[in-house]
Amino acid sequence: MAPIEDDAEHTHCDASVTLAFTVLGKRWNGMIISALGNGASTFGGLRRAVGGISDAVLSERLAELAEAQLVDRAVVPGPPVGVSYRLTDSGERLLPILIQLGEWASGNLSASRGG
Amino acid sequence: MAPIEDDAEHTHCDASVTLAFTVLGKRWNGMIISALGNGASTFGGLRRAVGGISDAVLSERLAELAEAQLVDRAVVPGPPVGVSYRLTDSGERLLPILIQLGEWASGNLSASRGG
Repeated sequence: MAPIEDDAEHTHCDASVTLAFTVLGKRWNGMIISALGNGASTFGGLRRAVGGISDAVLSERLAELAEAQLVDRAVVPGPPVGVSYRLTDSGERLLPILIQLGEWASGNLSASRGG
Repeated sequence: MAPIEDDAEHTHCDASVTLAFTVLGKRWNGMIISALGNGASTFGGLRRAVGGISDAVLSERLAELAEAQLVDRAVVPGPPVGVSYRLTDSGERLLPILIQLGEWASGNLSASRGG
C-alpha cells in the first residue's frame, strides 16, 4: 500500500463552489460587483472604481454579468442619453460575502505591492 | 449638469476586496482551496477533484498558493516518496466563506451547462 492513500473517492470539488467560480473566477468580476455595491453606476464610474480595466474588457464583463442576471443595464433618457448599471437582487446578495472575503484578505494575505 | 452624475468621488473599489481577488480571481484557485478543504491532499487527488485542470496549471497554482501562504507542501518519506498538500490556517479561514459563496451560487446562478 502506498503511504499516501488515493483520496479520489472521499473528496470532490463541491459543485456549487465550482458554479460560483464560473463567475467569480474571471478577473475583475468580483471587483465590478463590489464597485456597483459601493455606488458606482456609470461605465466611467465603474472604470475608475475598478482601476486598470480596459473599456473593452469592462464592456465584456458587464455583458456577462447581465447575462448571468447579476447586473441590470438601464438606458437613462437624455439628453445626453446615458446608460446606468446596478446590481440585481441576486447580485446584491453577493455583497455581504464579498465584504467577508475582503476582511479575510486583509487579515490573511499580504499586499505584496507595497513596501 | 449631466443627468448621470460623476460617481468617481463617492465610490471606490474596496482595497481589501481587490486584494482577495488577486488570489481568487485567478481561475481554479477557489476550487483548489475548496478541494483541499474537502480532504484532497495529493497532486492526483487534487487533479481529480478539480476537474478539467492540467498538470502544468495545477503545479503553477499550487506554487502560487504556497507563495501566498495559503497552502503548505510537505514531502512524505517513502518509499515511494510523495508530496502532500494541505491548507495553512489562513487557507482554512477561507473555507466557511467559500461555502457561503457556493450557497449563493446555488440560489442565484443557473448552471447553464445542464438541461
